[in-house]
Amino acid sequence: MSFTRPELPDDVATDRGGKIVLLVADGLGGLPHPETGLSEMETARTPNLDAMATEGVTGLHVPIAPGITPGSGPAHVALFGYDPLRYEIGRGVLEALGIGFELGEGDVAVRVNFATVDADGRITDRRAGRIPTEKCTELAGRLDQIRLPGVEVFVRPVKEHRAVIVLRGKALEGGLNDTDPQATGVPPLTFTDVTREQEKTADLLSAFQGAAREILKDEPAANTLTMRGISTRPDIPTFAERFKVRAAAIAGYPMYRGVAGLVGMDVLPPAETPEALGSALAGAYDDYDFFFLHFKKTDSTGEDGDFDGKVRATELFDTVVPLVRAVGPDVLLVTGDHSTPAALASHSWHPVPVALLAASARRDAVTSFGEAACLAGGLGAIRATDLMPIMLAHAGRLAKLGA
Amino acid sequence: MSFTRPELPDDVATDRGGKIVLLVADGLGGLPHPETGLSEMETARTPNLDAMATEGVTGLHVPIAPGITPGSGPAHVALFGYDPLRYEIGRGVLEALGIGFELGEGDVAVRVNFATVDADGRITDRRAGRIPTEKCTELAGRLDQIRLPGVEVFVRPVKEHRAVIVLRGKALEGGLNDTDPQATGVPPLTFTDVTREQEKTADLLSAFQGAAREILKDEPAANTLTMRGISTRPDIPTFAERFKVRAAAIAGYPMYRGVAGLVGMDVLPPAETPEALGSALAGAYDDYDFFFLHFKKTDSTGEDGDFDGKVRATELFDTVVPLVRAVGPDVLLVTGDHSTPAALASHSWHPVPVALLAASARRDAVTSFGEAACLAGGLGAIRATDLMPIMLAHAGRLAKLGA
Repeated sequence: MSFTRPELPDDVATDRGGKIVLLVADGLGGLPHPETGLSEMETARTPNLDAMATEGVTGLHVPIAPGITPGSGPAHVALFGYDPLRYEIGRGVLEALGIGFELGEGDVAVRVNFATVDADGRITDRRAGRIPTEKCTELAGRLDQIRLPGVEVFVRPVKEHRAVIVLRGKALEGGLNDTDPQATGVPPLTFTDVTREQEKTADLLSAFQGAAREILKDEPAANTLTMRGISTRPDIPTFAERFKVRAAAIAGYPMYRGVAGLVGMDVLPPAETPEALGSALAGAYDDYDFFFLHFKKTDSTGEDGDFDGKVRATELFDTVVPLVRAVGPDVLLVTGDHSTPAALASHSWHPVPVALLAASARRDAVTSFGEAACLAGGLGAIRATDLMPIMLAHAGRLAKLGA
Repeated sequence: MSFTRPELPDDVATDRGGKIVLLVADGLGGLPHPETGLSEMETARTPNLDAMATEGVTGLHVPIAPGITPGSGPAHVALFGYDPLRYEIGRGVLEALGIGFELGEGDVAVRVNFATVDADGRITDRRAGRIPTEKCTELAGRLDQIRLPGVEVFVRPVKEHRAVIVLRGKALEGGLNDTDPQATGVPPLTFTDVTREQEKTADLLSAFQGAAREILKDEPAANTLTMRGISTRPDIPTFAERFKVRAAAIAGYPMYRGVAGLVGMDVLPPAETPEALGSALAGAYDDYDFFFLHFKKTDSTGEDGDFDGKVRATELFDTVVPLVRAVGPDVLLVTGDHSTPAALASHSWHPVPVALLAASARRDAVTSFGEAACLAGGLGAIRATDLMPIMLAHAGRLAKLGA
């Protein structure tokens, strides 16, 4: 048994056809406001999105599987047409991508938690009292001085108690167990069940751990660290290989830029505002077949539990649509990577509205872009991994299967 | 690609969150009455179910796969979130569970058909003229006296020509071929392609067969027996292991109690009427996280082809809803295990209405609980195995997948 889903049959994608824009509003779907019964999308005034729903075909996508709430990494991997349960991206790699660290092939990335241990070496606080980010930056800078034989060592701060270690060198392997015991009152774990291939990496990280403890020993809170998600970049076939498109990513946040780079997209300079997204697209339009545009504010306002803020972010997102339509893509698909209802102040599992505009779109009766309206859409309820084949098909880029 | 469907990724379920009630009306879905065009559910007056549909989110589930009619065993296995094509329960085990026989681990259960053979040992009637159940009971009692070396032997009547054998002892194995040739004019089959591990069980069952023929030889109809579905309890990860919930089953019929026990639920004392179901739930509410409540009459009236009876059974089922809502579960999901249209007087493959009530439910426009209305529901058309992740998600019991 596997969780994997069909993606795209071999030898169907061709290197000819129209141009595609995948426009993603992070965390787009929501939940109804208790007073009005309308979601953030249904409350927002979105004439351009509604026009797309009217002229095109709509539906809803399930990011991973019913009931499963995705993190940003798996959610984007799925939007890009890769089964996230098949192409798993380790937490270390995600954390490194999230701060814009350029991971090379074979680099091992580790997510670090600063933690507090007592005199007997037992963990008393797994997050070192959530030290301020400034403190994290200072400590990461000190640990970045650690030298290990035969490899380069990079230590970078993330936020509060979180940091990243990257080892760069020959014959490194991921997949080691976490040293975070997920409990207090016990010491950090050591590496167990280490394979022959992992031995070198385990030895290096153990040596790092020892050196780090020595450096941190007089810290009042962050006097040790634990490691999680020890991983290398997954071996993912590129967009060019699988879908036969030259693809570019236009996004402001490191995480999304990183995941796009992982699947082989060219990552263009950061852009976040509608105007910046629009002009980056117009500027690069002749050079690529496929564009991924990422808009963040719909997610961050949802995460803050700010219903009105998410409504405004959705209205701002709506202004991206005419800027994209101005370049005249053959296929424009607008959706989110997952829902982030303000009511939950977090990512959720709820299906995400989709609107697709293309000459071959089979128009449905939907005339507004919202969760309830899209239930009646012509695309139905599909998986996120189905969106890539659908976009490619509408761009005339998929050959017939069989004679 | 296989037929198996995703169930739940590892490491997503947590042991914290709200309480869940899964309320099952057996055989709930139906077909329209030719005169009114309304199904049993659509004919029944069900104010409490309609209120659930109005306040919550609805949809339809496909029990196994489109077109596949499930028996009660596989249908419940799927409702409980286990792919029934992966976790196959042998007919012998199902038959034993169906009569409330407490199968131990390693017990081998066999479904028996009494049959008629001629003087040459060739089967003339595979069901021994459907002998009365009283006769079956008498014969099972006599066969229960058979003793075999090194194992305990139990023979129990089921109904008409059907009975169950259970062997209890060390190193027994299921998976032997049926001895029922599914044809007349030929003798019962012997065991073939017996593996080394199955040898002991094959020898014991062959010895049983010989002893039984001797006991039955003067019977006018039931002068032999055939064996089917020789099986042991499947190795199923428990509800506690997979879903991190303490689960209890409240049901009246042995089959459902047995299947619930197979997945590791605590099986509470039998309850069948709305009042008994409600008070059993209230009494045990503090001790569990998850409750499976089973209501049978919607199925048995459908099996009888009794449209009006099924309408009344559905109206009776409706009265269970307020008794359940009175305890205040965080998540209440109402559905059936499969459809049993009175028009077919049997189980069927038709999708089954679902209504879910929870604070995080994305309310849809559906205001009545019926087959046609639920087509517009926000859950869409899903698989039965998706219901467990959906319930757990709405109870806040699933962690985010990836960062």
